[in-house]
Amino acid sequence: MKLSIFVLSAALAIPAFATQQKLAKGADLLFQLEAAFAQDAAQHGHDAFLTWFADDGVELDDGGGIVSKEKMSKQPPWPEGTSLTWTPVKADMAASGDLGYTYGNYVFKHKDKSGKLITDYGKYTSIWKKQKDGSWKVVVDMGNSSPAPKEKE
Amino acid sequence: MKLSIFVLSAALAIPAFATQQKLAKGADLLFQLEAAFAQDAAQHGHDAFLTWFADDGVELDDGGGIVSKEKMSKQPPWPEGTSLTWTPVKADMAASGDLGYTYGNYVFKHKDKSGKLITDYGKYTSIWKKQKDGSWKVVVDMGNSSPAPKEKE
Repeated sequence: MKLSIFVLSAALAIPAFATQQKLAKGADLLFQLEAAFAQDAAQHGHDAFLTWFADDGVELDDGGGIVSKEKMSKQPPWPEGTSLTWTPVKADMAASGDLGYTYGNYVFKHKDKSGKLITDYGKYTSIWKKQKDGSWKVVVDMGNSSPAPKEKE
Repeated sequence: MKLSIFVLSAALAIPAFATQQKLAKGADLLFQLEAAFAQDAAQHGHDAFLTWFADDGVELDDGGGIVSKEKMSKQPPWPEGTSLTWTPVKADMAASGDLGYTYGNYVFKHKDKSGKLITDYGKYTSIWKKQKDGSWKVVVDMGNSSPAPKEKE
């Protein structure tokens, strides 16, 4: 009995993201995409981050320019100790289900030149577009800064 | 003949934006909305800027928080000498024609405490959504900074 419950649980867990994507719609799908994108970036860094962008996707770099995916691919990998996590606050999808967005908050941790860990807080917007092959990719990614949370929070 | 040309020109000019909105579609419509929004803000300042936001629209304030339209409406008008202009670089629309975005560059001029005119350069993303009454409103507006253009440019 215990074994069969385990097997059932495993069977339910395996299809994971690919199946969820097919089942989810609208804002739910966008929240799932964002979570999978964030998890992939957290585990695998800049190279993984890049794979979520459409070929014509751009990053509107805070303090920089409008960066194409090609330019992004020439950037060095994130240095050791860097992490970028983000949490959507809202998501919305077009009626046709091919274009949507989320926005929310991010936390960016990185080391300064002396090796001290710095934490930056900010907000982001991601715009997602369904590609011709049916996959979902980011076409615009943008962030800007927020005040650090108060210590008592 | 001159008069009839004048009358015809005037007749063509009068319907202006409302008719253009009905004729334009897709990215063209978004470019027109952005131009009308920018013109209105340039001529009439913060109060006019606000009217382009959906009731549930937000500004992701650079250096601040996620600002609701209600909070935006309580902000003071732009001080004399303030101007915000922006130029879309790209626009794209969902297949259903009810959700789209533009991104591009902005120039923000304002006076510092000593009265000196400061010019800030940046990028923006606007996400537009067709409302239940058929009007188009901004649901997300976000900006971040860019380097100042080189003087020789």
